[in-house]
Amino acid sequence: MSCSEFDIIARYFNRQSTIRKDVLLGIGDDCALLIPSLKQYLAISTDTLVSGTHFLPDIDPADLGYKSLAVNLSDLAAMGADPAWVSLALTLPEVNEPWLASFSESLFGLLDYYGMQLIGGDTTKGPLSLTLTINGWVPIDKQLTRSGAKAGHWIYVTGWPGDSAAGLAILQGKLEVADQDQRNYLVKRHLRPQPRILMGQGMRQLATAAIDISDGLLPDLGHILKASGCGARIHLDRLVFSSALTDNCSREQAIRWALTGGEDYELCFTVPEDNRGALDTALSGLGIPYNCIGQITANGGLQLLDGNQVVEFEGSGYDHFSE
Amino acid sequence: MSCSEFDIIARYFNRQSTIRKDVLLGIGDDCALLIPSLKQYLAISTDTLVSGTHFLPDIDPADLGYKSLAVNLSDLAAMGADPAWVSLALTLPEVNEPWLASFSESLFGLLDYYGMQLIGGDTTKGPLSLTLTINGWVPIDKQLTRSGAKAGHWIYVTGWPGDSAAGLAILQGKLEVADQDQRNYLVKRHLRPQPRILMGQGMRQLATAAIDISDGLLPDLGHILKASGCGARIHLDRLVFSSALTDNCSREQAIRWALTGGEDYELCFTVPEDNRGALDTALSGLGIPYNCIGQITANGGLQLLDGNQVVEFEGSGYDHFSE
Repeated sequence: MSCSEFDIIARYFNRQSTIRKDVLLGIGDDCALLIPSLKQYLAISTDTLVSGTHFLPDIDPADLGYKSLAVNLSDLAAMGADPAWVSLALTLPEVNEPWLASFSESLFGLLDYYGMQLIGGDTTKGPLSLTLTINGWVPIDKQLTRSGAKAGHWIYVTGWPGDSAAGLAILQGKLEVADQDQRNYLVKRHLRPQPRILMGQGMRQLATAAIDISDGLLPDLGHILKASGCGARIHLDRLVFSSALTDNCSREQAIRWALTGGEDYELCFTVPEDNRGALDTALSGLGIPYNCIGQITANGGLQLLDGNQVVEFEGSGYDHFSE
Repeated sequence: MSCSEFDIIARYFNRQSTIRKDVLLGIGDDCALLIPSLKQYLAISTDTLVSGTHFLPDIDPADLGYKSLAVNLSDLAAMGADPAWVSLALTLPEVNEPWLASFSESLFGLLDYYGMQLIGGDTTKGPLSLTLTINGWVPIDKQLTRSGAKAGHWIYVTGWPGDSAAGLAILQGKLEVADQDQRNYLVKRHLRPQPRILMGQGMRQLATAAIDISDGLLPDLGHILKASGCGARIHLDRLVFSSALTDNCSREQAIRWALTGGEDYELCFTVPEDNRGALDTALSGLGIPYNCIGQITANGGLQLLDGNQVVEFEGSGYDHFSE
């Protein structure tokens, strides 16, 4: 079967299901042309997923299409941004049309859900990998950076951390889950993470710092602490887990996965005492829990408490190159 | 040697040699934040380079750092855009610090030359490849698209097409060039293509269509013809070659490399009769030749003439997936 680079783009990626008013020129020229928004900053983030490093080589292409965009959306969520456009660089070992059909169908499903437009990219031959560069808009001076946390601010986490690592363990044959619903739930949490876009938008002007949990709660909170120049006290007994997680592993394992498992794509954020009421108003209707798990401290370092006990914790989150 | 993903970014990529006023937040948060320009469109383009497909695995990292940015700049040039920012997604099989130092030194050299800022990206482990997403500004309604060519407009090409393919042939041991200066020139034309940014800026409002020659003059001109809904007549005897090229291969080979060799990163563009004088004024001081090689026709199709002879030509430009 002969299918050129241009055929691939025309058949699978040059669909215009969502047409945005700020896209003057999309796929098909040397550059895309976008119309700036006067009262907003442009937020840009890039994520690469490599076969064998970020996903299993036999991943369902529909899951890959979803996840590659979801992890990028998660960065916009952590900035409090509204999703706008994305560029897709897709490197493929061969042209597999059913694979491409399934991948692009799933990708466009999520693009359309968020009113986003695919504006360009590149299609090349080589070992399977994807790089997406996502663009979004943030109202001026309402962005959520990592550097605004101050001593006394409360530390929150959305959703159910630890689920994703459990889902990966199931796929790798390292965790047995007898209940099919619980098994499916955990695997889905790994393969189809829900970007917390609405929560990011809801906490604009209320949160002082935010990050999405891609490497694990501890290392990602560590980025906030480093950028903000402060420390934190975390109460492990305040972590909220899904019942699918706690029904199928020890409490220690659940804590370990939440702290360092990574790929949960929940948000970790900090809120001053005065904004906690407004935060509840903004987030409580969104159907996703958010739990206060600790407090920012003036002194550097991260202290873990379980009840009144200070806990020592070994290990850190995922880092591609550490040995 | 232990060197984490964050160490790599901090040591080699978080330099701020150029600080742009439109960059509110660069490397180091969930997203970069950019300040839109009111009277300009944002131009975005993405290019991926894969080891073994786009460059030889033993390429000098300094050449790779240069070329990965230059091919992206070439897309901005073809749109008439002013370079602004770039995101770099770098996938590496291992951490090789001398390699990274050389790569990033070269990349930042070209970034600084164009007053650009690296705003983010991703560093991952896997088979060597790079994806750059470049951003530039174009004054509103002065962009150079592919779709504005009309019958009667003159077709121009900048520089010396065919050199890059000859340089690649030298590196592959397929072309012998005894003269060391000529050899170095041709290899440099392949490894260090000069993006025609100044020429793209100079032809804004004068050219009606433009494209950069990445796949070869014929297929790339073909994109203009398709987008503009017209045909063209090209006079092969008007192609201008470097003496390094004509001294070392037959005229037929030079023509073949110019038409289908690819990677010249020259500009092919169309200009109405009335703008030719202004074009000379705008471009003649830039030190790069630009030659009229033919004319747009109303009827579809591309006719090649050599003197008064119609020439049949087999073969097309580079396509990653065609067989």
